[in-house]
Amino acid sequence: MSTDDPLRQATRQLARFPGIGERTAARLAWWLLRQAPEVSEEIAAAILHLRQGMTECSRCANIAAADPCPTCGDPSRDTGIVCVVERPQDVAAIEASGAFRGRYHVLHGAISPLDGIGPDALRIRPLLARVEQGEVKELVLATDPDVEGDATALYLAALLKGTGVRVTRLAHGISVGTEIEYADKSSVARAMEHRREV
Amino acid sequence: MSTDDPLRQATRQLARFPGIGERTAARLAWWLLRQAPEVSEEIAAAILHLRQGMTECSRCANIAAADPCPTCGDPSRDTGIVCVVERPQDVAAIEASGAFRGRYHVLHGAISPLDGIGPDALRIRPLLARVEQGEVKELVLATDPDVEGDATALYLAALLKGTGVRVTRLAHGISVGTEIEYADKSSVARAMEHRREV
Repeated sequence: MSTDDPLRQATRQLARFPGIGERTAARLAWWLLRQAPEVSEEIAAAILHLRQGMTECSRCANIAAADPCPTCGDPSRDTGIVCVVERPQDVAAIEASGAFRGRYHVLHGAISPLDGIGPDALRIRPLLARVEQGEVKELVLATDPDVEGDATALYLAALLKGTGVRVTRLAHGISVGTEIEYADKSSVARAMEHRREV
Repeated sequence: MSTDDPLRQATRQLARFPGIGERTAARLAWWLLRQAPEVSEEIAAAILHLRQGMTECSRCANIAAADPCPTCGDPSRDTGIVCVVERPQDVAAIEASGAFRGRYHVLHGAISPLDGIGPDALRIRPLLARVEQGEVKELVLATDPDVEGDATALYLAALLKGTGVRVTRLAHGISVGTEIEYADKSSVARAMEHRREV
């Protein structure tokens, strides 16, 4: 078999996925070859459509199929309380807990000087713009309980001091070291319930 | 987020891969969203091209980018000895050993009455046709050392009795580098059964 036949190409491409090594990628490629052609077509189409069909919400910076996203576009949700998260996946985790009926703001990361990520690399300015519009009464900081998440929460708390906005932080319920994306929903619900003043 | 937005669709499609659950699929989909659009495009193209670009060799039934496959098309290889394997992947494993310079024949499975797989479901007839052409002097049966692989080897050996073709089977025993203490008991049993004069 030549070094760049379609099988090798597919193996190499599938091995780009995080956590998928060469061997697993080869196994997936062989599996595709044994399926009906529609399987490959449907998977390829979904991958293409994913990148083309999702966009960043111009209000909360969440990634969704529409702008504004379903949460920002839902008039029944409380505009006075905004939950600030690191990643779009965290929105889904908090929604699954059913404990929050406000809006969100996605930072797309956390402050991490070691990785060269400062406040300007995050969606902090649009968050301040939302606060300046005056509707926001409380910000719930739901960044991860790790060094970067804590640093980001402290930075935001300092930044918002004197604006009159109540700043709280998710606290009890999420064990230290667990990323919010992977926390179980009752822990997320508890954390929301017990949020504390920063 | 609606239940069938592009993210959910991609997650569902990626979860069709064997060994990839819903959570891993979601993680891969989010990873794709964070990459440049070219990453999704290249992976999708490789998946599509894989199914369109690979074909079954009309001589040995191996899956390759060309027909005849590179092995069948290589005039330097011995046409007198044919290694019979269950899967195309087995060809790659034997090639990697560097110990074989003959041709191959891929059965695409093994006889398994419990799964309803009889001899007619395998590429046995084209193998017999190759034998009847008279060039084959030896068949090395390299089916798996399990119930189905053994049954398939026995079936082929019986079928080829009287044709004058030498029929051999890959030696099974303790794998090189395995300490006897840690070898599985059926490998030890085979090794004992097939012991050789030193």
